[in-house]
Amino acid sequence: MGIHKFFTSMNDLERIIRAPGKFKFEEHNVAAHSWKVAQYAMFFGTLEEMGGSDVDWKSLYEKTINHDFAEVFIGDIKTPVKHSSPELKQMLATVEEKMMEKFISREIPEEFQAVFFHRMKEGKDGTLEGRLLELADKLDQFYEAYAELKRGNTEPDFIQMYEIALTKILEMPLKKSVAYFRDVILEDVVSEKTAVDVKSLTMRILNRQED
Amino acid sequence: MGIHKFFTSMNDLERIIRAPGKFKFEEHNVAAHSWKVAQYAMFFGTLEEMGGSDVDWKSLYEKTINHDFAEVFIGDIKTPVKHSSPELKQMLATVEEKMMEKFISREIPEEFQAVFFHRMKEGKDGTLEGRLLELADKLDQFYEAYAELKRGNTEPDFIQMYEIALTKILEMPLKKSVAYFRDVILEDVVSEKTAVDVKSLTMRILNRQED
Amino acid sequence: MGIHKFFTSMNDLERIIRAPGKFKFEEHNVAAHSWKVAQYAMFFGTLEEMGGSDVDWKSLYEKTINHDFAEVFIGDIKTPVKHSSPELKQMLATVEEKMMEKFISREIPEEFQAVFFHRMKEGKDGTLEGRLLELADKLDQFYEAYAELKRGNTEPDFIQMYEIALTKILEMPLKKSVAYFRDVILEDVVSEKTAVDVKSLTMRILNRQED
Amino acid sequence: MGIHKFFTSMNDLERIIRAPGKFKFEEHNVAAHSWKVAQYAMFFGTLEEMGGSDVDWKSLYEKTINHDFAEVFIGDIKTPVKHSSPELKQMLATVEEKMMEKFISREIPEEFQAVFFHRMKEGKDGTLEGRLLELADKLDQFYEAYAELKRGNTEPDFIQMYEIALTKILEMPLKKSVAYFRDVILEDVVSEKTAVDVKSLTMRILNRQED
Amino acid sequence: MGIHKFFTSMNDLERIIRAPGKFKFEEHNVAAHSWKVAQYAMFFGTLEEMGGSDVDWKSLYEKTINHDFAEVFIGDIKTPVKHSSPELKQMLATVEEKMMEKFISREIPEEFQAVFFHRMKEGKDGTLEGRLLELADKLDQFYEAYAELKRGNTEPDFIQMYEIALTKILEMPLKKSVAYFRDVILEDVVSEKTAVDVKSLTMRILNRQED
Amino acid sequence: MGIHKFFTSMNDLERIIRAPGKFKFEEHNVAAHSWKVAQYAMFFGTLEEMGGSDVDWKSLYEKTINHDFAEVFIGDIKTPVKHSSPELKQMLATVEEKMMEKFISREIPEEFQAVFFHRMKEGKDGTLEGRLLELADKLDQFYEAYAELKRGNTEPDFIQMYEIALTKILEMPLKKSVAYFRDVILEDVVSEKTAVDVKSLTMRILNRQED
Repeated sequence: MGIHKFFTSMNDLERIIRAPGKFKFEEHNVAAHSWKVAQYAMFFGTLEEMGGSDVDWKSLYEKTINHDFAEVFIGDIKTPVKHSSPELKQMLATVEEKMMEKFISREIPEEFQAVFFHRMKEGKDGTLEGRLLELADKLDQFYEAYAELKRGNTEPDFIQMYEIALTKILEMPLKKSVAYFRDVILEDVVSEKTAVDVKSLTMRILNRQED
Repeated sequence: MGIHKFFTSMNDLERIIRAPGKFKFEEHNVAAHSWKVAQYAMFFGTLEEMGGSDVDWKSLYEKTINHDFAEVFIGDIKTPVKHSSPELKQMLATVEEKMMEKFISREIPEEFQAVFFHRMKEGKDGTLEGRLLELADKLDQFYEAYAELKRGNTEPDFIQMYEIALTKILEMPLKKSVAYFRDVILEDVVSEKTAVDVKSLTMRILNRQED
Repeated sequence: MGIHKFFTSMNDLERIIRAPGKFKFEEHNVAAHSWKVAQYAMFFGTLEEMGGSDVDWKSLYEKTINHDFAEVFIGDIKTPVKHSSPELKQMLATVEEKMMEKFISREIPEEFQAVFFHRMKEGKDGTLEGRLLELADKLDQFYEAYAELKRGNTEPDFIQMYEIALTKILEMPLKKSVAYFRDVILEDVVSEKTAVDVKSLTMRILNRQED
Repeated sequence: MGIHKFFTSMNDLERIIRAPGKFKFEEHNVAAHSWKVAQYAMFFGTLEEMGGSDVDWKSLYEKTINHDFAEVFIGDIKTPVKHSSPELKQMLATVEEKMMEKFISREIPEEFQAVFFHRMKEGKDGTLEGRLLELADKLDQFYEAYAELKRGNTEPDFIQMYEIALTKILEMPLKKSVAYFRDVILEDVVSEKTAVDVKSLTMRILNRQED
Repeated sequence: MGIHKFFTSMNDLERIIRAPGKFKFEEHNVAAHSWKVAQYAMFFGTLEEMGGSDVDWKSLYEKTINHDFAEVFIGDIKTPVKHSSPELKQMLATVEEKMMEKFISREIPEEFQAVFFHRMKEGKDGTLEGRLLELADKLDQFYEAYAELKRGNTEPDFIQMYEIALTKILEMPLKKSVAYFRDVILEDVVSEKTAVDVKSLTMRILNRQED
Repeated sequence: MGIHKFFTSMNDLERIIRAPGKFKFEEHNVAAHSWKVAQYAMFFGTLEEMGGSDVDWKSLYEKTINHDFAEVFIGDIKTPVKHSSPELKQMLATVEEKMMEKFISREIPEEFQAVFFHRMKEGKDGTLEGRLLELADKLDQFYEAYAELKRGNTEPDFIQMYEIALTKILEMPLKKSVAYFRDVILEDVVSEKTAVDVKSLTMRILNRQED
């Protein structure tokens, strides 16, 4: 149907709820998540640029706002499924890619297809922008889990989500960003009043990193 | 953790929403769906029994209440994904099965494992009970789509869902049940006041069947 | 209108919320509740069968999936009302029964009426299946209250609901089931991290039982 | 516990949903309903006063804001139940009254009990204020049903609710109010664009009245 | 359009959520809030009357049920905005007033305009009824914040809301009401089990008052 | 508190609902809206670039993802308020700006303040990027209204919102984009099955434009 179809399909992402099936005090949809990821990337991109790196801003913003578009086809498949085996994760990635391709060739007018193929492909590559996307994506997971723990959600899933996201952030090959996150942002995080003891959990993860 | 873990995981199915991402006036969760499927099966099982068939009731009820339990691991993956290719559908079935197995061997005490393996395996086989499960499952899809059309949901997805479910029901190898559905129930369905013209849609599908 | 009317009335039970008027972090509908009750019954029925009892599975499953169907007429009347006086409880039971009868004679085709009357009558009798239904129904109340306490709901209503449900479960004349619940399941329950101190509450109730 | 208990119990009425179990595009709670009833009464009381009647405003406002307080105990029992038999309706009225009495004698400090008993008793008596309460209460039912029909809700329940409420309003012994409603307000109602044909439905009811 | 327009606009207030944008475990709409304010006023008006004051009940009830009607035009503007500067607060008050005037002159039939202008004007004046309105309005803010703290909401916004509301209540020039609130109601408030430590917070505010 | 405060304030925008107080079948939050605006801008920016214009992509994306950030302070004030008078609109713009400034100077570390001031200022200027932002913002209003009309929402507010948004889009000084929207996208829009007659409404607006 063309671009109209593409535009209306965005509305579907407002109805795809992240971490489906888990008890949570507040739900987040994939559209709002994508916006927050773009915002985090804006900040850390600025930080890296101040530190002397060249940021391809067009690429960075397109990677962030497009990175979960394929969930329109496959939904937010539960993370444990994605990670249950490397083969499965690979399979699901292939499916997403195939459905994206089908969508583009069927719905997007020919003159725009090349641009769409380029923009909608997996963005988490080794470039600075790819790494910033990964950091920003993990950071939103970190904040989603943090907000649940803060309000007293005792489900192990969110403790685990917090732990995995924080660990991955601290290990990202983005020196300046990670240092700022650890030395400045995390300080503020652990100083907040929370229902579940986020501070001890965080300290344990930080200490493990330093070994 | 044992049976406690199994019991609490049922709560997750109350949060898995069917047909995720599609606009709908009313949401349905997988737990409530499973109950409705058991109810439909109770009725059509009775009908078949009245017609002279032997119904294995224990098997029928267990098939229905357990048939979507695996969605606790994988969510309600969007139907177009499932049907995008036979390979993909097969892959996803394999994943579900693997995760079910892992869950049983890890969480269910040994003395109950055999029973659980038996009960949780795919129920839509060629037995009378397997066919009744399939009919009942499709019937709930039929009613979910019908309720949306009745209230004025004009999304093509629900028209298509109605069409596919109705077609499959009419083709089920369950003579007595299908006849009753077509001659009695469908009559009542098309006589209701609806926002989208369900009657014409239904007639078109019925006529196609008769060719 | 017939069976179509019966089928669509099930949808109403997806909108009847349990414990109406009380603050809760998560709502449960009567349809999903009925499914969970069938699942609990499946487990404890298995346990009793392993212990040498004869289980009438058809009866057990029908009792569980049908036990709250009458709420379609009367809603989930607040428990304090039901228990405010024996007369009142009796009155409400009579009302439910009368409305059920009226529904069956008006909506259900004659050839199915006998079956429906039989299936929809109050299932909590003294049979093994009736007692398993009662256990399973109380267990869902137990888990609903538990989930609220775990997340920090400090309303006295849920503490009381937990207490009443647990006490009734422990007193059920189902030796094997109660023993397994107390010795195995409850162990796992009290070992979870909870916001409200469920462990002490549970211990107090257990000790009271032993006196 | 005293007045604090009374104040917090009002919060419960924000969670009691009217017409439970029925499909509706928008839910209404009993607290908001009570406010709207007070507002309708304010208008029609003014109208009656302009027409020369003496309005006891204190009584009118207290009747309206208190008229559904007892639902805190018994919930919004489904209307068909209330009307299934005169005995049942009477029984439920008795229960509500008894629970109200118990609440007042237990929770309200002695010095306020007389005032509370007076205010919380059934307000729909034959006084001008009692009749204005009844009109206002029916009018909110009328508007709730109207809003559903306007948006395309085809459930027979709401057509019936519209019909019953409108009929009762037109028959209220409140000459000036009913005339204004019929000649002015209803004109505006039927001139709105609606999904279900409210105009014809209204005309049919009006014509029936005139016979 | 007339009174029909006025009546339907009340429905809009059921959709205006208080304290928009803040995380909360339970939402409250302006219609239900207005009802609760009328109820609090009923109690404290009674108390003042018992203490020998003359209460103009008609005025008191009309002030309470109408005090937030103007939010139908402007929404529940976030409190920090209202208080960011006296000029801004004044500006917003002017806007509300202007829109109210426009609404009345456009929608309300001429014969009722004077009454509406009188009833819809800002009610928090220095009269006994104006002060009772202010007390009741603050009390609902107090209870909204209290309920969140009780359930474990650690957002500073609600601690601040609790603090401001409680402080203002204690300083209201309504001797009898404030004494009863402080000596009786607050005692019950601080004796409840809460997730956030409301008791210490309350004591700190009370002590500050006494200096 | 720094960047942590900025990051968590984004979560507030997930709770600010657009067009508060109006009946709608589906709610949209400001965070998801901002993401959709960035997506529309990505498409029309591409179109303009293909037509030979130079697009400053960094500026375009930052304008879109930041354009409603100030609603975190003031909420989504109802559009009729904004447009009730030019003075009022100006006042509200000033308030937003002042609160943004206060937020930045208080929360954002000094080294980032200049960047934030630049990014958060009103983006709808006369530049190509400013005009693309305006087009994209109106387009989301267009699609929000369209989705409501399609599903049968008969509220005049959404018809008016559709009309205003469409009119403004057609008048935007962005020749290539407007032509593509009118000639290609709008064709697809009016060919969809809708409950309210969107096609005639659109044709009327298009004809008016051509005069």
